[in-house]
Amino acid sequence: MNIIRSKENKAVKSAKKLLQKKYRKDTYLIEGFHLFEEASRSGAEILETFVTEEFAAKFPEAIIVTQEVLNFITDSKTPQGLVAVVKMNNDLDYEKINLNKILVLDGVQDPGNVGTLIRTADAGGFDAVFLSRDCADVYSPKVMRSMQGSNYHLPVYSVDLSELYKKLKELKISVLASTLSDESISYKEVEQKSGIALVLGNEGQGISQLTKNEADVLVHIDMPGQAESLNVAIAGGILIFNFI
Amino acid sequence: MNIIRSKENKAVKSAKKLLQKKYRKDTYLIEGFHLFEEASRSGAEILETFVTEEFAAKFPEAIIVTQEVLNFITDSKTPQGLVAVVKMNNDLDYEKINLNKILVLDGVQDPGNVGTLIRTADAGGFDAVFLSRDCADVYSPKVMRSMQGSNYHLPVYSVDLSELYKKLKELKISVLASTLSDESISYKEVEQKSGIALVLGNEGQGISQLTKNEADVLVHIDMPGQAESLNVAIAGGILIFNFI
Repeated sequence: MNIIRSKENKAVKSAKKLLQKKYRKDTYLIEGFHLFEEASRSGAEILETFVTEEFAAKFPEAIIVTQEVLNFITDSKTPQGLVAVVKMNNDLDYEKINLNKILVLDGVQDPGNVGTLIRTADAGGFDAVFLSRDCADVYSPKVMRSMQGSNYHLPVYSVDLSELYKKLKELKISVLASTLSDESISYKEVEQKSGIALVLGNEGQGISQLTKNEADVLVHIDMPGQAESLNVAIAGGILIFNFI
Repeated sequence: MNIIRSKENKAVKSAKKLLQKKYRKDTYLIEGFHLFEEASRSGAEILETFVTEEFAAKFPEAIIVTQEVLNFITDSKTPQGLVAVVKMNNDLDYEKINLNKILVLDGVQDPGNVGTLIRTADAGGFDAVFLSRDCADVYSPKVMRSMQGSNYHLPVYSVDLSELYKKLKELKISVLASTLSDESISYKEVEQKSGIALVLGNEGQGISQLTKNEADVLVHIDMPGQAESLNVAIAGGILIFNFI
């Protein structure tokens, strides 16, 4: 069995680069058996798989590496025995996606929030998630971990928000943006449960000016207590499950 | 102005110890001006305050330290100019607390989840939060950061769950425990909105056997999508805001 022990190995070095956003153009890393299975099942193209020796028999196509080399190509504190390089799906064709109930993230910065929101949209049976370009990168290892494979259950795209809003207008989909303002209404007053795009904004700044301009309805969550705000993922969870 | 430059200073060394759970018996650390204000306003006893030189004039009672010394007594990656030692409130008297609508955390391990859930209970106007002894420590710096001062808005206690359940039975408060089992009903079927204790379980294992035995109602959140589960803080947010 040929075991790669050197961090200078070409395939290892290429994979390592994918920990940095600037190198993630067409490919990204996944870690662990669960995500590998989810990716395979969804038909995602897995270009390279690295496993430690103990899993070699299970993955005959994989490159066998030492634990040290495997640790080198992940940023996880508790690395599992598998890392794979997966091809991105960058071809967005609005005609091929169900847009009946979608989640839009407008500048959500924290990778944990982005991942959790995509996982929650998946749990809630939403049809797709769109992220503005200034959100945390969907393909970062941290977002990958908190999504728990939900990106393989529903389409997730990074987009130009103004183009998305244009498309949604054409399709007569109502844009509901979450905010705390004088013009907003309680989400409980919204009767429409489909044909909606739910928009959540940045952790500190809220929704962008573009979203404010383009939204059909501004909604808020009434808070009877003393906390000044809700975490954006919590607000998203409450709203998503209100619309199922 | 006397500026402490040494990490060997007695007050500095005592404060530093509070980063470790084993030393947090009666006191804990808070960081930043916002939490300091919240603590002061709530009447919490602030035993010692450390600030950097630039804030000395605003805090005449504080110990002035260098930025390096301040960084030494916090585990934050982006330390602010203030750290304070605060006295815990360990005196639990059930007679003095409103128990009309409470949140119970049963073995929630992640500090971010614990903090976010307490913040969400606060936002939702819940009356108190109780944590089983095996939850992440409420007084840890990470939980403190994600609570964002909500522990100064509502009572938060670490308790023996069996004693709590005994008390709740006496008071005829319904224990609703979140779980995914054959015996659970959808949370939407629960009509009662007060006199309730909502229990959330561990991230991996769910609620404990004790909670299963003591719960009056087991509730779940229907998930029309493909994700296997919801993050516990998201589930908590959905449930808390259902009961307001």
